[in-house]
Amino acid sequence: MSEKMKVGIVGYGNLGRGVEQAIRRNPDMELTAVFTRRDPKSLRIATQGVPVLHVDEASSYQDQIDVMILCGGSATDLPEMGPHFAGRFNTIDSFDTHARIPEYFAAMDAKALEGGKVSIISVGWDPGMFSLNRIYAQSILPQGSTYTFWGRGVSQGHSDALRRVPGVKNAIQYTVPIEKAMEAARSGSQPELSTREKHLRECYVVAEEGADKAEIERTIKTMPNYFSDYDTTVHFISEEELKRDHSKMPHGGFVIRSGETGQEGHKHVIEYSLKLDSNPEFTASVLVCYARAAVRMAKGEDKGAKSVFDVAPALLSMESPEELRAHLL
Amino acid sequence: MSEKMKVGIVGYGNLGRGVEQAIRRNPDMELTAVFTRRDPKSLRIATQGVPVLHVDEASSYQDQIDVMILCGGSATDLPEMGPHFAGRFNTIDSFDTHARIPEYFAAMDAKALEGGKVSIISVGWDPGMFSLNRIYAQSILPQGSTYTFWGRGVSQGHSDALRRVPGVKNAIQYTVPIEKAMEAARSGSQPELSTREKHLRECYVVAEEGADKAEIERTIKTMPNYFSDYDTTVHFISEEELKRDHSKMPHGGFVIRSGETGQEGHKHVIEYSLKLDSNPEFTASVLVCYARAAVRMAKGEDKGAKSVFDVAPALLSMESPEELRAHLL
Repeated sequence: MSEKMKVGIVGYGNLGRGVEQAIRRNPDMELTAVFTRRDPKSLRIATQGVPVLHVDEASSYQDQIDVMILCGGSATDLPEMGPHFAGRFNTIDSFDTHARIPEYFAAMDAKALEGGKVSIISVGWDPGMFSLNRIYAQSILPQGSTYTFWGRGVSQGHSDALRRVPGVKNAIQYTVPIEKAMEAARSGSQPELSTREKHLRECYVVAEEGADKAEIERTIKTMPNYFSDYDTTVHFISEEELKRDHSKMPHGGFVIRSGETGQEGHKHVIEYSLKLDSNPEFTASVLVCYARAAVRMAKGEDKGAKSVFDVAPALLSMESPEELRAHLL
Repeated sequence: MSEKMKVGIVGYGNLGRGVEQAIRRNPDMELTAVFTRRDPKSLRIATQGVPVLHVDEASSYQDQIDVMILCGGSATDLPEMGPHFAGRFNTIDSFDTHARIPEYFAAMDAKALEGGKVSIISVGWDPGMFSLNRIYAQSILPQGSTYTFWGRGVSQGHSDALRRVPGVKNAIQYTVPIEKAMEAARSGSQPELSTREKHLRECYVVAEEGADKAEIERTIKTMPNYFSDYDTTVHFISEEELKRDHSKMPHGGFVIRSGETGQEGHKHVIEYSLKLDSNPEFTASVLVCYARAAVRMAKGEDKGAKSVFDVAPALLSMESPEELRAHLL
């Protein structure tokens, strides 16, 4: 067996821990080091014998790490962390602020080209696997409609919005796709579906003692952008109930495209769905197989920023091209 | 707009007609010529002003055709037609004899490398889109089980087998996935499913006058490889009923992978499904977007035989990389 691929992790939150676990499930890879902005001594990682270092020490690892997986958030971490690491290392990240992808891509591309490295951005399931299913389905059926449904799963952004409401001590929000809308999307009739028709928002809220629950509920349900365009339900529960019943991180969703072909307009429906027990662990598993691709692309003298659209599927797999053709084609 | 991609079709059966229709739905392409082994005068195609020529005249079109879509069958046509066209043209085909793919790939690769062209083999939905979903899902979740279900749809091979039974005048066979098995695959429990548990076989048979129907049914149900390992039902119908109720070509199927991640073995289910009104038109639509990719790969100085595993998704789309990142990622 050839030498193992050497992987570094930057950031050790839920996603970083997921990446560590995913590396263990890929026998052609090993974890070389974890980098953190916290005091490295404060961190206990799951893998024995692997050093935990401050991010500032990363540059001395350039010759020892084949690919760095950047496990920071998109709001503030990655816009700074990404271009800092790109060009020094091959990198993978899960940048998911859709509106800022072109700008982030350009910044990463400049650095990666300069340093002769490969940086694959916006990897995960959306953006990521859902994006792939959109591009495949639209390329096959250019005349049609694509629908994306998310959930049932926790939205961090919406949960954070709940926690900012006065009188709210803690809260969690589930995005729930509406079955009737999914059935309409699957019917092939290409319906127009409004925001309200596609998803429900379910809120589980722990109120501060003495808070006005009616006022909290009103504030939530009328909050623009986050809740006012949806049918939103608010359930008041205790802190214990929140911990007991809502500490898991399940998620998932659906990409459905229906389109037509031929003179008679024959209808076709392509559907992709995910049902995930752990959102961060699944996202991490996607990052890790794209890390394999980044290393292979860089060895093939490719360079610059890439997205999942630029990566040939064979590069993701542990199996050889011959094995893939014989067993999976 | 840049010049249109010039496409040739070899073979004008159901698949060839589907390709002709799919080209019309892709405004960056145009049909240059249709090649046939029949008398070209006997063929009426749907597109006005496009020449129908004998296959022997194809070589004089080498400078006028960017990619040739080979619409022959896998049993006898493609093993001969494929290597004949590879190297002279960029080619796309839907070779689907799974056991012979490595051998066919090698033959196509030798010719394509020699001629400096790109030949993408085994394109369609299985092999094709289903293969892609297997490789993506297995790369993300290396520990898990993959299940493929086909149907409800017509199997040509099984319909042909029925027609060879003595006393059978005409017949059609539907492959039907069993809902209980699909639910088990989706449960994440990674069950072992037998052949009989996964699919039913539904046969609609027109018997010759005076034929022994009980004997026909017995022969079908005990036929090795085709029916004996399945729960098979046989319905005797009239020729008129066959024409009226069974002349469409719907198909579809499911690829389901369940796998686990992390120390706690969190479960995940990835599912891809197709529901197709017209099997040949959908297959043709896949061939046509891979034709675009073949031309782009050849322009990029790539050459040799490829499968869907080797094609970066961005190459399939009419949209530019910038548009794709802005709108689909």
